[in-house]
Amino acid sequence: MAHPLFTPEVRQMLEENDVVAMKAFCEEVHPATVAEALCDGFDVEEVWRFLQSTDIRTQARIFEYLPADWQIRMAEGTGRQHMARLIEQMSHDDRVDLLQRLAPTVRESLLRLVDEADRRDIALLQSYAENTAGAIMTTDYAWIPAHISVAEALERLRLQAPDSETIYYVYVLDEHRHLQGVVSLRQLILAPRHRAMEEIMERDLITVHANEDRESVAQKLARYDLLAIPVVDDQNRLLGIVTYDDVLDVVVSEATEDVQKGAGLLPIENYLEAPFFLVWRRRIGWLACLFIAEMFTFTALAYFEDAIKRIAVLSMFVPLCIATGGNSGSQAATLVIRALSLQQVTVAQWWKVLSHELAMGLALGLALGLIGFARSYVLEWVNPGLLEVGTGHAADHPSASSPISSSDCPPDQGRQRLEGWRIGMVIGMAVAAICLWGTLVGSMLPVFFRAIGIDPAFASSPFVATFVDVTGIVIYFNIARLWIPAL
Amino acid sequence: MAHPLFTPEVRQMLEENDVVAMKAFCEEVHPATVAEALCDGFDVEEVWRFLQSTDIRTQARIFEYLPADWQIRMAEGTGRQHMARLIEQMSHDDRVDLLQRLAPTVRESLLRLVDEADRRDIALLQSYAENTAGAIMTTDYAWIPAHISVAEALERLRLQAPDSETIYYVYVLDEHRHLQGVVSLRQLILAPRHRAMEEIMERDLITVHANEDRESVAQKLARYDLLAIPVVDDQNRLLGIVTYDDVLDVVVSEATEDVQKGAGLLPIENYLEAPFFLVWRRRIGWLACLFIAEMFTFTALAYFEDAIKRIAVLSMFVPLCIATGGNSGSQAATLVIRALSLQQVTVAQWWKVLSHELAMGLALGLALGLIGFARSYVLEWVNPGLLEVGTGHAADHPSASSPISSSDCPPDQGRQRLEGWRIGMVIGMAVAAICLWGTLVGSMLPVFFRAIGIDPAFASSPFVATFVDVTGIVIYFNIARLWIPAL
Repeated sequence: MAHPLFTPEVRQMLEENDVVAMKAFCEEVHPATVAEALCDGFDVEEVWRFLQSTDIRTQARIFEYLPADWQIRMAEGTGRQHMARLIEQMSHDDRVDLLQRLAPTVRESLLRLVDEADRRDIALLQSYAENTAGAIMTTDYAWIPAHISVAEALERLRLQAPDSETIYYVYVLDEHRHLQGVVSLRQLILAPRHRAMEEIMERDLITVHANEDRESVAQKLARYDLLAIPVVDDQNRLLGIVTYDDVLDVVVSEATEDVQKGAGLLPIENYLEAPFFLVWRRRIGWLACLFIAEMFTFTALAYFEDAIKRIAVLSMFVPLCIATGGNSGSQAATLVIRALSLQQVTVAQWWKVLSHELAMGLALGLALGLIGFARSYVLEWVNPGLLEVGTGHAADHPSASSPISSSDCPPDQGRQRLEGWRIGMVIGMAVAAICLWGTLVGSMLPVFFRAIGIDPAFASSPFVATFVDVTGIVIYFNIARLWIPAL
Repeated sequence: MAHPLFTPEVRQMLEENDVVAMKAFCEEVHPATVAEALCDGFDVEEVWRFLQSTDIRTQARIFEYLPADWQIRMAEGTGRQHMARLIEQMSHDDRVDLLQRLAPTVRESLLRLVDEADRRDIALLQSYAENTAGAIMTTDYAWIPAHISVAEALERLRLQAPDSETIYYVYVLDEHRHLQGVVSLRQLILAPRHRAMEEIMERDLITVHANEDRESVAQKLARYDLLAIPVVDDQNRLLGIVTYDDVLDVVVSEATEDVQKGAGLLPIENYLEAPFFLVWRRRIGWLACLFIAEMFTFTALAYFEDAIKRIAVLSMFVPLCIATGGNSGSQAATLVIRALSLQQVTVAQWWKVLSHELAMGLALGLALGLIGFARSYVLEWVNPGLLEVGTGHAADHPSASSPISSSDCPPDQGRQRLEGWRIGMVIGMAVAAICLWGTLVGSMLPVFFRAIGIDPAFASSPFVATFVDVTGIVIYFNIARLWIPAL
């Protein structure tokens, strides 16, 4: 994330304490670039010294582009008075994010110093639940009454705008702040000066409710190609707006969450910066659950103890067969989870998904089964020793716990040998069946999860793979019994 | 994706052939909503009849919101003359997408009917490689020369704008179309009328080259919170702009690709709409590769044949141990792939990632190893029969291919039994070691892939899991040999 181009210059300006150059740099370069250059190898105090060369509004613009952990350190590292002035200048949504990340004592002492109106605004935005439209909106928008003319509206904007995060849409409100319409800046520029706002405003409004999920906000904004979407309360009063740049952030962080849940992870925003123990807890939770669930593979294999003891080669194909189910299940789960989250598929279409995956699972399983058959069929010539039927005791003592001793060895069983085609059929059929089974489980679990109100992303690849591992072992040995009469 | 609210009304208007109502619906409702209502249960001819109630420009706006497969059917289902007029009115980027999806014969016959200027513009946009800035840009932007005043600029925009997809930025060009600066519509509104454009324009420009990857375009636009980003050639001449709504689409489809590659899939855009055989090919490719790679689990197990034949219980813990490595590897790979793609981590930081994952792998492995030890330690009381050392022949005949017969049974070996703590140590240590190994492989493979120029997303969970499965078996049996002297 470093911006190596400017780092030497920033260092020189700091060393020479060249306030004029610092001011020029802060004001002429894009604030995102300034922020990147500043957090590359400098300490908090140096950054403050650099920022204070310019006016408080520019400081706020640059401050907003600093990474979250830098903002926290900066806020704790300066005089509270100065930080309170900066907060008054920050965008309304960004400053709430910052305050929520600060230690409670720091937050309280800062809030006491902030201007009354800003403090009320902060309290309002903080009152919305995380991940709702209310939590990501800004209260900084441009508005005008319905009766004024285009010329007057432009004049009013000129007065309002410097404080508005976005004026690309101008909202038309009545005296009780009910949302009546919207005029884009583009329409305003193109309209004849004398027309009244109510004549040119768009009345077919796309709005979101303050409690609506941020993902649905992002979908609406994207579907209707909007720059900003108004957030209203139950009485259709305008509370704030969510702008396209915040939606872009939402889309990126939702995608990160989806990807991470897909690997059985609780969300981790920034990989190297997150605290070690937090990451450990978020990783060990799922890992331990999967590990305990995976223990049932042992239980299942112990159940088929006799078969394994008599024909050891059967146990050697277990990882191959169950891994196939896990892989085909992962693919199906990933496709269906993504399709559900992009709303390409709904729960009501489960039947369509099932029949699609049934056909797909058969087509995939058949192809893999053929390869599996070929691989195990050649054993007859490559590893003939592996096909010997061992001196197990299945025929004599069906109970698994009976003690064995060498004197139990029946005189003739040791010479038995499996035919290559038999083991070929077992592996081929098992691979095909488990591949189909994995596909069906992988596609139906996310739909089922969504139907009962769980986030489908939790029907992740490791989850599906573990489930298919355990059940796959049972499928595998039952197919083995079908083709090997001695079992 | 249906918009059930309007479907009955649309049906009624069509049945009554109420052209006035259709026209009003097309013009007053958001084109995205009209498009959704139209493709819900109506046929191509009905949709055309509905659209033709309004003017060609509104038709184009609605047409752009139809899903890709509908656009194709519509384009093939109407008179070429009418379709050519519609293409002239469509956004410059959307119409190129449509033409590229049409059958070559349809495309050719349509292009012949399109206006000369539009045809040249289409040819230019088609000449850029897929997934570059050039391929997603539009040539429809607002521009003005540097010397004119703000008032004149606003007047010119009023003439240009109806044809511009976005006028939120006005680009300042010299007579050779070199990009000199940019003025946002917001700045234009706020600036005094008499100022010259060159006085108020922003000169510190963020641009992209026409051949730049679309992902890097999306990152720049998001980082600098821009509404649109100018696309230039080697001589800094303005070629077009990429707007925020196209970037939003890029971000969503890149995230889909990342998620799908994470499950070992070649990208599939729309789950249920993609053709069956295409989806099959994209799924079977990776599945077959993984299946063939996974066959080495059999090779590895066959190598430890003697151990398995003598102590069958060892083979029953194989799926549990290797699945753990796969799961911990998936987690690490997913975190690192996402961190690489969000540029939170670079290849140069591989050492930082490695030491982080070394510590993390140890901490995770220790926790799981303890659970594994506990689970297998209790076998002594729960399944004592499983701990018997079988009548294998490892001690007498180290060669795996030697024929066995019951008469080979040595007189005393059958009575041997493993102590619970030994199998506990084997499982506990193997789980810890394989978990650590999976974590290291999962975190380093994506970095290695990026370093040698392969998309790190291909170091996906199934890929890592397969690799760890095979190597995990070797680790497991070597640890077993350490604790079980008889092996």
